[in-house]
Amino acid sequence: MDAEIIAIGSELLTPRRMDTNSLWLTDKLNSLGVEVVTKTIVGDDRERLTATVKAAADRSGIVIVTGGLGPTEDDLTRDSVASALGRGMSFRQELMDAIVDRFARMRRSMAENNRRQAYLIDGAEALDNPNGTAPGQWIPLPGKGAIALLPGPPREMMPMYQNHIETRLKAILPPAFIATVWYRIAGMGESDLDQLIAPVYTRYTNPVTTVLAKPGDVEVHLRARCATQAEADALLAEVAPQVRELLGDRVYSDDGAELEEALGRLLIARGATLAAAESCTGGMLGGRITNVPGSSAYFRGGFLTYTDQMKTALLGVPEELIREHTAVSEPVAKAMAQGARERTGADYALSVTGYAGPDGGTERDPAGTVYIGLASAGGVEARRISFIPDRYRVRSVACITAMDWLRKRLT
Amino acid sequence: MDAEIIAIGSELLTPRRMDTNSLWLTDKLNSLGVEVVTKTIVGDDRERLTATVKAAADRSGIVIVTGGLGPTEDDLTRDSVASALGRGMSFRQELMDAIVDRFARMRRSMAENNRRQAYLIDGAEALDNPNGTAPGQWIPLPGKGAIALLPGPPREMMPMYQNHIETRLKAILPPAFIATVWYRIAGMGESDLDQLIAPVYTRYTNPVTTVLAKPGDVEVHLRARCATQAEADALLAEVAPQVRELLGDRVYSDDGAELEEALGRLLIARGATLAAAESCTGGMLGGRITNVPGSSAYFRGGFLTYTDQMKTALLGVPEELIREHTAVSEPVAKAMAQGARERTGADYALSVTGYAGPDGGTERDPAGTVYIGLASAGGVEARRISFIPDRYRVRSVACITAMDWLRKRLT
Repeated sequence: MDAEIIAIGSELLTPRRMDTNSLWLTDKLNSLGVEVVTKTIVGDDRERLTATVKAAADRSGIVIVTGGLGPTEDDLTRDSVASALGRGMSFRQELMDAIVDRFARMRRSMAENNRRQAYLIDGAEALDNPNGTAPGQWIPLPGKGAIALLPGPPREMMPMYQNHIETRLKAILPPAFIATVWYRIAGMGESDLDQLIAPVYTRYTNPVTTVLAKPGDVEVHLRARCATQAEADALLAEVAPQVRELLGDRVYSDDGAELEEALGRLLIARGATLAAAESCTGGMLGGRITNVPGSSAYFRGGFLTYTDQMKTALLGVPEELIREHTAVSEPVAKAMAQGARERTGADYALSVTGYAGPDGGTERDPAGTVYIGLASAGGVEARRISFIPDRYRVRSVACITAMDWLRKRLT
Repeated sequence: MDAEIIAIGSELLTPRRMDTNSLWLTDKLNSLGVEVVTKTIVGDDRERLTATVKAAADRSGIVIVTGGLGPTEDDLTRDSVASALGRGMSFRQELMDAIVDRFARMRRSMAENNRRQAYLIDGAEALDNPNGTAPGQWIPLPGKGAIALLPGPPREMMPMYQNHIETRLKAILPPAFIATVWYRIAGMGESDLDQLIAPVYTRYTNPVTTVLAKPGDVEVHLRARCATQAEADALLAEVAPQVRELLGDRVYSDDGAELEEALGRLLIARGATLAAAESCTGGMLGGRITNVPGSSAYFRGGFLTYTDQMKTALLGVPEELIREHTAVSEPVAKAMAQGARERTGADYALSVTGYAGPDGGTERDPAGTVYIGLASAGGVEARRISFIPDRYRVRSVACITAMDWLRKRLT
């Protein structure tokens, strides 16, 4: 059974407010084996709201509606859901009493419009709200599923879901068990990766495979869903290793860890230390490495040598080398890495020098070209990589490529 | 004319991913006088996607669709929008050529499935995408409005909206005259800022005032909308200076420039140079400063001294000073800044040393405490700031605070 989430309120359609309730609800629903297939955010408009609820109830078993249960004219959820289902509503004295009681306990006077909150849709069950005035509503749709109306404020919505909705959902859901695995991969584009693993995953509709991409960084999720946990585990155990084998050493983590975290674990395991020498990334590489709490265990430090003069003064890169090869070259990348390694005493040093763009570059090395160096006890190497000269992308993929190079070396 | 935004992609229906594009788009649409009345997030499901697009096009003049334009089987936007409109698609050699060319420039081989991206919906106009492989599409619906298909990655979507969609929307919208101003402010929380300027902006429903907040960085937009440009300009000229005066020297830009850009302009204007010495930020500060194309005109370089030993070895911070005061202290922040200034010959040097958290710290300086140093020809100073020990927030607000300190000094 699939779910839809509808968030109601014109304030959620402004440039600065997001519907964050749905993230929390998605996590809860996923843990019951329920997929969220659509999320809709609608303003306080009766006609749109009614149409949205009707469409959702027609196509999905579970519909969770948040917000719009307040006492004002703008709070149209009750009316609209009743219309969408072609049902009436009735005033419930026991709900009114609870609201009156709440105001009394808060020593505040109740506004007349709070009476609106005491109306219950025909066939609905009222859900107690100890954290606010609006009761929730649970509307079973026999043979189909259910609709739940929850208040918008997270501190009212969350306890109501946990105390009332979860058990009711479990009672109407077919038993389902989930097994998941999550590979993260550096240094490969989304479409190349998709082409690589499609021959495996397209043979299965279960587990479901999802590919998510950021520049230089891709995630592959596999989720098996079965009638028993043993079946889900067995299905995943059949498919996941096939995907894993195709991905090979490109996988840097299978537990959600970021690349810098995966690299950090390897350095810790070897008792090794790291340093950085950055030109075009200007600190981004060190910034990423030290995103990890506890990175002081292996990161010693580094050098931001943004000018030729600084490469010579801080890292000892010979002036002649720069003059002969330019600062963006294999020999200079090597000299930078070696200089950083010597000056910090680290076991490994990574260097980055390039033309981040949008301007700069030479005919041999246009904007978007980066040289990466890696120095270790075994010597020093350098690699050339090139990108479309988008400044952010060049810099960030250069950092990823550098970290992933060392990660593979340590694996 | 109203707008709907549809975000496509199963990854946006997971518990940890949000559709942030729609916030940015809402702001842009609002600035044209267009209200966003519904936002929908749909997974990669052909049938649902088609129904969603059809319903949106039936009830709203403008429909902006983001995502699902990639090369994989999961990318169903083109197909679904064509189905929803009852139109065909055709392969366009000129789009294919542009994609092939892009791969050639990146010196990467093109996967066969990228051919999918060269299909254009009948009656659509292709929109150039200099930042990715997927072209966008603009589909005019005469007498009704239009549908725009944009790529999902913000770095592709935003320029495409600005270069192609905005002018096309203006051409189909009834004339409305807008005057806007946009202040960016560092070092103030959203609610403090709101309290400061509310006495002015609450007196006006036009211009509309919007406050957008990120950690350490707040934006205030004022938008006047009138029947003539002269009226809009006059209205803004009445209100904006009152807000500006309350904000004072906290405003670092009024043209959308980032803080690092605003700082860079001031350094260029003075012909001055900058260096950095980073401990807990590990390179983030240098990384931010060098986000700006052309920053090599003023940024000389820096030092990532993540260990006590490196502070001494690379920056000459006396061992005794660290022993006596700890590495997270005012004297050490000063010595770091001074060391960086001397070793790079820069006019100004900023330093950062702190406990980024979540662990670490002392009773005097718990996790979340940061000292920032600023060295110049006039001497060296340091400041202490403290935050909730959220690692990302501490590090990023420390960078902002450091840059803003120097910006104010140079103003």
